[in-house]
Amino acid sequence: MSEVESKCKQAKVAAAKLATIGSAVKDRALLAIADAFEASKSLILEANQKDLEVAERNGVGGAMLKRLTLDEKKIALMADGVRQIAALRDPVGQTIEGYVRPNGMEVRKVRVPIGVIGIIYESRPNVTADAAALCLKAGNAVVLRGGSEAINSNLAIAGIIRKIISAEGVPDGAVQIIETTDRSAVIELLKMKDYIDLLIPRGGKGLVKSVVENSFIPVVWHLDGNCHVYVDAAADLSMAEEIVMNAKVQNPGVCNAMETLLVSEQIAGEFLPRICKRLADAGVEIRGCAKTRELVSGVKEATEEDWFTEYLDLILAVKVVSGLDDAISHINTYGSRHSDAIVTENYTAARRFADEVDSACVFVNVSTRFSDGYEFGKGAEMGISTQKLHARGPMGVEEITTYKYVVTGNGQLRS
Amino acid sequence: MSEVESKCKQAKVAAAKLATIGSAVKDRALLAIADAFEASKSLILEANQKDLEVAERNGVGGAMLKRLTLDEKKIALMADGVRQIAALRDPVGQTIEGYVRPNGMEVRKVRVPIGVIGIIYESRPNVTADAAALCLKAGNAVVLRGGSEAINSNLAIAGIIRKIISAEGVPDGAVQIIETTDRSAVIELLKMKDYIDLLIPRGGKGLVKSVVENSFIPVVWHLDGNCHVYVDAAADLSMAEEIVMNAKVQNPGVCNAMETLLVSEQIAGEFLPRICKRLADAGVEIRGCAKTRELVSGVKEATEEDWFTEYLDLILAVKVVSGLDDAISHINTYGSRHSDAIVTENYTAARRFADEVDSACVFVNVSTRFSDGYEFGKGAEMGISTQKLHARGPMGVEEITTYKYVVTGNGQLRS
Repeated sequence: MSEVESKCKQAKVAAAKLATIGSAVKDRALLAIADAFEASKSLILEANQKDLEVAERNGVGGAMLKRLTLDEKKIALMADGVRQIAALRDPVGQTIEGYVRPNGMEVRKVRVPIGVIGIIYESRPNVTADAAALCLKAGNAVVLRGGSEAINSNLAIAGIIRKIISAEGVPDGAVQIIETTDRSAVIELLKMKDYIDLLIPRGGKGLVKSVVENSFIPVVWHLDGNCHVYVDAAADLSMAEEIVMNAKVQNPGVCNAMETLLVSEQIAGEFLPRICKRLADAGVEIRGCAKTRELVSGVKEATEEDWFTEYLDLILAVKVVSGLDDAISHINTYGSRHSDAIVTENYTAARRFADEVDSACVFVNVSTRFSDGYEFGKGAEMGISTQKLHARGPMGVEEITTYKYVVTGNGQLRS
Repeated sequence: MSEVESKCKQAKVAAAKLATIGSAVKDRALLAIADAFEASKSLILEANQKDLEVAERNGVGGAMLKRLTLDEKKIALMADGVRQIAALRDPVGQTIEGYVRPNGMEVRKVRVPIGVIGIIYESRPNVTADAAALCLKAGNAVVLRGGSEAINSNLAIAGIIRKIISAEGVPDGAVQIIETTDRSAVIELLKMKDYIDLLIPRGGKGLVKSVVENSFIPVVWHLDGNCHVYVDAAADLSMAEEIVMNAKVQNPGVCNAMETLLVSEQIAGEFLPRICKRLADAGVEIRGCAKTRELVSGVKEATEEDWFTEYLDLILAVKVVSGLDDAISHINTYGSRHSDAIVTENYTAARRFADEVDSACVFVNVSTRFSDGYEFGKGAEMGISTQKLHARGPMGVEEITTYKYVVTGNGQLRS
């Protein structure tokens, strides 16, 4: 039996036991994992150093190298995320809804684990910790398949987790990590439908598309994050400036960074020159529509392609729109249904934007950068779903559960 | 453009408008639809008569003919279901969860429609009414593709609905019915991923499997209903008798009918002879394990295949089990994760059965026949999901919605 099949099988066996384990055991294990991350930080950093050396030899740089790099602060954040997850109420067993039918039978919709979750991810080693902790809390076994570029870091982190859970009475096998770095392991994973209930691909668009198209297992996908900020005619322009800068510049290489700025024509003449100056000072290349180029000199022309593009870089498409309707229509046409924001002091505009923009997360007077499981109070995230089925937006513990109906009675018969 | 593509396109246009329509308009339309079903019952019954004549010419009989047949009572039930749906609280806009983060931003998880739902079904014309009403209530447009054997009934019912919604201010195009009875229409429907957000196949296992395997659109599936009743050592045996008879005989051709009876060996000697007598009197063929055949004469031998089989007929597999663990293990091994019942007066057995049987619906001292959207108070159902993602068990209006995060603040920036 291959490594992949053997580990998936072990995960399935563990999942059956994990489903009925008490919260106390799970939370104690999570707290011990958080402590172990901090106690073993030098071990994790050493492993990460190996990955970084390989990456540098391979000429990897920029955003990818940044994602791959761990430091003391990132390890502290990882530990904090796990502690936050431990502190959440156990989703398993939660009654989502309950009522009595006219015939006296009691119907309860009760949250239960999904079973085994497979996660395929790239470069960020902290995903190993996040995914394992979220799955454990939700009573799911997990099969981790991280990118080859982070294999040493991932093995170190998963090794710590596996050691702790085994000592803390969590079923052995609940956390599996695939060591084969070959791409064939991913292809094999997609076929493990007898063992894996849900696959979550996390990473570049190419990886996700390939998983969605080739998987025999249900997938919750996170495709691209082509996020917008719309500065409305009624915006507080100082607030708008800060939100735009935060959404574009604070961390441009991530999915919730802004890629297109939409500006109402009523305030474009005032707003665009000053924001473009600040953006340019921060090193952002601007690609604008015709009106933008009239108002601001030295702006490149944006093509149709630009409106669709997730740059993940210090590049920004800018468009002047006639107003709210135009902004909503642009976002629903070109966006990726991830995260979009409006800046406005107008009540109706705020409400209509929230109602009519068809995205997983809509923000009013908040930077799109908050579209994140940790920022939403979920401790961490399994990914950000840009599909509509099962889960949408940042996925925390509840989003990796399902439910069952428990119906109790005293001899009800159907007539 | 083909009929299928053109209707899917119209549905998508309607869905965008339908998402923001008020509850008052939707509920008024639903009540008018219910009235129209009753007022036009002769028109529906005439159309149904045509289908029945064709079916008889084609030698269709038994359970299939029963499913196809409408009568005044079924039309009254259809209307009642639609009225129940109208009376439900609008799921759209419901805040599932809401909280404030430490930085002051307010996070709300708000229920919204999915968009366009395609439903592919067989023989039962009342599904046309149920699916259209549930989708309308949940703010979704629907593309209906019923079986060719029920085409006249389906067109009559859908025609009534389309006339009413157009008069009541619901966006035209919200309810689409495919008139092409050719199988090519189904194949085309599976490719409409630009227009349809979710496909629900409802009907025989062959149909469902073919949709799941060939669809380019996310599918919520309902495969087989291999349902069990376990009569525990601590059962009230009179109650057990009634539940077993109800679960097997009241309507054997449906997915929530019992297919395998499990009996604790502690009470098998007392219970099996009397229940087998009643079942045989009701015309049920019994296929038993070795112990069953020792206790009851004239019972055929059950093969391994029988434990997996959904008979949808007056046939029952019977097995004597050593106790609760054996029963749970049998159900989780051979069952289809649809609906399973225990009959017991023992508290711990009831609780363990509910926790450990991995099925969409678990029943304690209630007939499996209640596994049904109408019986669960949902007015009707879009199908009964036997998968774990998105929705599980009977799917009513909430189960055909998704959600979005609406985040409001006053200039929050991420640091």
